[in-house]
Amino acid sequence: MKIVLLGSGNVATHLAKALKAKGENVIQVYSPNLVHAKLLADGIAAEAVSDLNAVKTDADLYIISIKDDAIGSIAEALKGVSGLVVHTSGTTDIKVLSDQVKDSGVFYPLQTFSKSKDVDFDRIPLCIEATDATQLEILHQLASKLSGQVYVLNGEKRKVLHLAAVFASNFPNHLYALANRVLQQNDLDFEIIRPLIAETADKVMTNLPENVQTGPAVRADETTINKHLSMLKDMPALQEIYQILSNSIKLMQK
Amino acid sequence: MKIVLLGSGNVATHLAKALKAKGENVIQVYSPNLVHAKLLADGIAAEAVSDLNAVKTDADLYIISIKDDAIGSIAEALKGVSGLVVHTSGTTDIKVLSDQVKDSGVFYPLQTFSKSKDVDFDRIPLCIEATDATQLEILHQLASKLSGQVYVLNGEKRKVLHLAAVFASNFPNHLYALANRVLQQNDLDFEIIRPLIAETADKVMTNLPENVQTGPAVRADETTINKHLSMLKDMPALQEIYQILSNSIKLMQK
Repeated sequence: MKIVLLGSGNVATHLAKALKAKGENVIQVYSPNLVHAKLLADGIAAEAVSDLNAVKTDADLYIISIKDDAIGSIAEALKGVSGLVVHTSGTTDIKVLSDQVKDSGVFYPLQTFSKSKDVDFDRIPLCIEATDATQLEILHQLASKLSGQVYVLNGEKRKVLHLAAVFASNFPNHLYALANRVLQQNDLDFEIIRPLIAETADKVMTNLPENVQTGPAVRADETTINKHLSMLKDMPALQEIYQILSNSIKLMQK
Repeated sequence: MKIVLLGSGNVATHLAKALKAKGENVIQVYSPNLVHAKLLADGIAAEAVSDLNAVKTDADLYIISIKDDAIGSIAEALKGVSGLVVHTSGTTDIKVLSDQVKDSGVFYPLQTFSKSKDVDFDRIPLCIEATDATQLEILHQLASKLSGQVYVLNGEKRKVLHLAAVFASNFPNHLYALANRVLQQNDLDFEIIRPLIAETADKVMTNLPENVQTGPAVRADETTINKHLSMLKDMPALQEIYQILSNSIKLMQK
């Protein structure tokens, strides 16, 4: 299977490496920025292109992995291709592709990617969708090569999953950052709190989070809550977040 | 060293097991509920007592590990003892002890404990404090036996750490629970999102969270943010949390 990868960001980079590692044949990497395209293409022995007209039209699979609002225009440029065209977005409707090309699908890896950190693709849930059963089967085979967790999800469920991921990943990371701000203001190092973060996540690997909630709010320990709120009096934004999340924890107990 | 443990909750239970595992001599476990005291004491070959008058007065160390607002009254009951009296609370001032007993200290494990899940005590930061240098040295030796991470912190810093821990642990766990609520409402299983939670925590083991933030808010992707907010229109409490945390992420970029 000849694959063209369109994009050079975090998802594209990790996906390219995973495809290469499984012996898949990525023939081209497209990015409007040729330097970015080359950087990625060179690592996987593919051709780098920065002109959409130079994208080969006879590949079997086109993976569009760029920011959401640019997917439509890339799909338009792929109008003439014969292969299956997929995007990797959690929020973008498959229609953005199917309006433009014959065979379309979605190949959404549910994970947070950073260029600086390798991830084990085998443990990344891959959510797939296609407009056609034959294409879905092709995607399923490819996804199963890359990951042990493949889910066939329609667009509605995929969007829900993406929303849940913001709560489960983006927001917790931001709360780690706010914790670090509190620590820094008091000359304490983030290192001291890392084991706690690791254990908190580890706990929900075998439990449901609502069953292992700890802290002052779940105990309705108003004395501690009020102490904390008064410690945050010079950080009103953090104080508001503390208040709202504590109330939300209390509500969930009812 | 003869140790008396006062309390039978999560922290007391894990601490008792860790002390036992390191060959420390816990002679008594006190709980106002004799069944609870027995449950814990039997596992570590200690005596269970439910009457404070039955607590031995010649132990070397008394560890009070009960809820914060009861620490003072336990300390009062220990007025006559000759050993060092410590509590394990993140928020309680050492004064609550030193007002009552001769030698006092704090032995605060920075971790989230559940009875159902074992933790590796060796990786738990232990924050210690004492009113006297000799007593601090005793505590330091004991703490170093249990954990590779021992911090001498005054009460002020310990309280800051406890506050930071709410942001780094209690609130992220609650956000996992909110994610699960979103998933459940759409017949999706929490299992699908576990790898994302694990990776999000794993990322900050070697990075600072503010450097690895991902998601729509950090990209100022208003289209996705607005889609998500409208998906949450029937869950106004979650909508408010989404809005406030997204704004906070955007502010941190400035």
